[in-house]
Amino acid sequence: MASSLGRLSGSRWGSAALGRGCRRPCARPPDSAAGRFGGAGPGQTRGLGYGGGTRGVGGGGRARRAPWLVAGLAAGLAGMAAASLQHLARADMVPRTEGASGVSERADELALRCNSFMAHPVTALSELRARPGDMKTQMELLIMETQAQVCKALAQLDRGAGFSVDRWERKEGGGGISCVLQDGQVFEKAGVSVSVVHGSLSEEAIKQMRSRGKVLKTKNGQLPFCAMGVSSVIHPKNPHAPTFHFNYRYFEIEEADGNKQWWFGGGCDLTPTYLNQEDAVHFHKTLKDACDQHDPSFYPKFKKWCDDYFVIKHRGERRGIGGIFFDDLDSPSKEDVFRFVQSCARAVVPSYIPLVKKHCNDPFTPQEKQWQQLRRGRYVEFNLLYDRGTKFGLFTPGSRIESILMSLPLTARWEYMHAPSKNSKEAEILEILHHPKDWVH
Amino acid sequence: MASSLGRLSGSRWGSAALGRGCRRPCARPPDSAAGRFGGAGPGQTRGLGYGGGTRGVGGGGRARRAPWLVAGLAAGLAGMAAASLQHLARADMVPRTEGASGVSERADELALRCNSFMAHPVTALSELRARPGDMKTQMELLIMETQAQVCKALAQLDRGAGFSVDRWERKEGGGGISCVLQDGQVFEKAGVSVSVVHGSLSEEAIKQMRSRGKVLKTKNGQLPFCAMGVSSVIHPKNPHAPTFHFNYRYFEIEEADGNKQWWFGGGCDLTPTYLNQEDAVHFHKTLKDACDQHDPSFYPKFKKWCDDYFVIKHRGERRGIGGIFFDDLDSPSKEDVFRFVQSCARAVVPSYIPLVKKHCNDPFTPQEKQWQQLRRGRYVEFNLLYDRGTKFGLFTPGSRIESILMSLPLTARWEYMHAPSKNSKEAEILEILHHPKDWVH
Repeated sequence: MASSLGRLSGSRWGSAALGRGCRRPCARPPDSAAGRFGGAGPGQTRGLGYGGGTRGVGGGGRARRAPWLVAGLAAGLAGMAAASLQHLARADMVPRTEGASGVSERADELALRCNSFMAHPVTALSELRARPGDMKTQMELLIMETQAQVCKALAQLDRGAGFSVDRWERKEGGGGISCVLQDGQVFEKAGVSVSVVHGSLSEEAIKQMRSRGKVLKTKNGQLPFCAMGVSSVIHPKNPHAPTFHFNYRYFEIEEADGNKQWWFGGGCDLTPTYLNQEDAVHFHKTLKDACDQHDPSFYPKFKKWCDDYFVIKHRGERRGIGGIFFDDLDSPSKEDVFRFVQSCARAVVPSYIPLVKKHCNDPFTPQEKQWQQLRRGRYVEFNLLYDRGTKFGLFTPGSRIESILMSLPLTARWEYMHAPSKNSKEAEILEILHHPKDWVH
Repeated sequence: MASSLGRLSGSRWGSAALGRGCRRPCARPPDSAAGRFGGAGPGQTRGLGYGGGTRGVGGGGRARRAPWLVAGLAAGLAGMAAASLQHLARADMVPRTEGASGVSERADELALRCNSFMAHPVTALSELRARPGDMKTQMELLIMETQAQVCKALAQLDRGAGFSVDRWERKEGGGGISCVLQDGQVFEKAGVSVSVVHGSLSEEAIKQMRSRGKVLKTKNGQLPFCAMGVSSVIHPKNPHAPTFHFNYRYFEIEEADGNKQWWFGGGCDLTPTYLNQEDAVHFHKTLKDACDQHDPSFYPKFKKWCDDYFVIKHRGERRGIGGIFFDDLDSPSKEDVFRFVQSCARAVVPSYIPLVKKHCNDPFTPQEKQWQQLRRGRYVEFNLLYDRGTKFGLFTPGSRIESILMSLPLTARWEYMHAPSKNSKEAEILEILHHPKDWVH
């Protein structure tokens, strides 16, 4: 339950907005790290880039504005590089204990890398630094980096939108960072969330894993685990710009006899309101290229897995035109699978963002908007009725409900007995949802 | 799956509209039954009352208009009695085999009673007539009557709205009648559905019943059953008019040794967007009065059951301000429990309709509408994640998906991290959803 979550400080969740004035590559200089790692106090503003674009999240009357601490920034106002986005971070979400290490971090490659993230990694820098070769460290840095790249690409497309960055702690162990852009010009809702959690697996989780064929030796019913991942759902406003989802995750468990199991899972899939063949081919081709770098059998296998997974069973239709999906990937080696996941994560922006760029200003009719809203309804049906991750999250004590349900669209619609007319554009996409096709060979 | 459902005839579901011109009590004369029971062909119009208010359901471009058969109607255009509503029934939904019995039905009390229904009962009249004292007959007539009373009350409030009446068959045995009013002036969406199904219980259903403590002796895993019920969800447009749900059902199963088990279940609950104490008291008092006629322990017991059932667990909040809920009621006798259920069913209109009448023209702000939409989102969460009936229906082969999901609102909204401000009207209702209270003593 949300109420069981620890908060770093303050009576509200930390929140931040992306500066909308930033127009050119603006690498943060080393000394700016001090600002982010605790050098400045609440209310102080450092650097440029705060263009007044802060939009309170939450609506509904509650004032959510607060004193902001603007992350340090070099200069420049013409263009924004994905790798160097400035951002605002609420002062009270920065653990003060880290502040003292500001000087050493300046010379620290890890700290420099972290500067491009949306927030501190979930794990303390000192711990990450102590185990640089460990897969947990590598994966946490990859998911933080992916979150930042995607958020920056979104912010670049939707400059006026407020972007909240919430850091949360899980009482049972670990925490996460949720970045959400809501009701912007381009995006209806876009969430990119990172979580790094550990503790002992719930019975429900063990049951779910065993149902997938995993042999797990528990001790007094306990199974220590560490799980981390980045997940995202992006709903653009324009009905001709598709909805997108991705998730990449890493799992480690320690069995009763000390044996350690590990695996990776993830995937991404596209949910267009209307079919655009060119978009579908671009999306799948980008994924295939990422897969083919590692194993030519991956794309066809994981494409089919995706088609089989994202099914709204009671409707007999898929939620979208697919992508890739895999789970329990644990061979040939951690490093090999990590490199594959890294390629997938790096394909996120190039596979999707060009499609939004292309369509975000397309003209559309009220009927097209309405069809989009009906498809949003189907998205909700899938997520609440079938999505393993959503259900697993909602039924796991200590989960952060808002981070799980940020995948739901801002608005959705259900009409009784709606069916598109024959040979319409609506019928065309429905046909594909009933009979998925191969987009690349 | 919807695709496995039989359709009576035609390529579209049957659909009907309530005449909006009807303004006075207009009892259908006996001879009008011929029209409803199959006397006239498609395209023929009989009687008065078709005021052009037919609205195609489905929207989205598909032409859903069709030749209509207007049910016979006496005269009169000033006022509409709940007990005598005229309605239009699509010709092709009327089984022709019944047509031949038109003459004998004229003198038949049962046929006369059926004339006030929204459509033929699911079970053939000849079968109902053959077992007049059987509980299955009594209950089917009660649920048909309840459906008609509620639909008529809704139509009286929302005169310009199209009302579809769909009759459907279940391949595995039985069928139902779904009446849906969508996007009217007063109601955003209101569905009242009757189903009468029989066959052999699915494994999933047996498991669910056993989990409630039922001892069920199967033979080769088979368990013949008959289930019938009326269920409804009504979402008004005005955020000051509450959403309402009710469901009353009867179950019979035959065990391997020939032993027959039976039970009733049901309840109703109110989901206001804003708290109105007077409404809450009226609603609960009407239910309490219905309960108290039968057993003074019923209301407190079933009120608590309702509070405990309609919980959105991951939010730690109830979906509304409750009502009554009961299941597995199987003593002291079929007749006693039936009379109690009958009182509950007859309390539906007086408990709820006055509240809509009172508030359907209340002024409201865009913020109030938005809060309503957010609460609609919570309604969707409950229905898809927790509602036993919805899940049972969706996962049961042969179910009619559209009739199950007609409970979903026309539109809903999810905002990340929404929370109402302190001491607001929104916070007031949330407080009640977290801590249900007693409305009558």
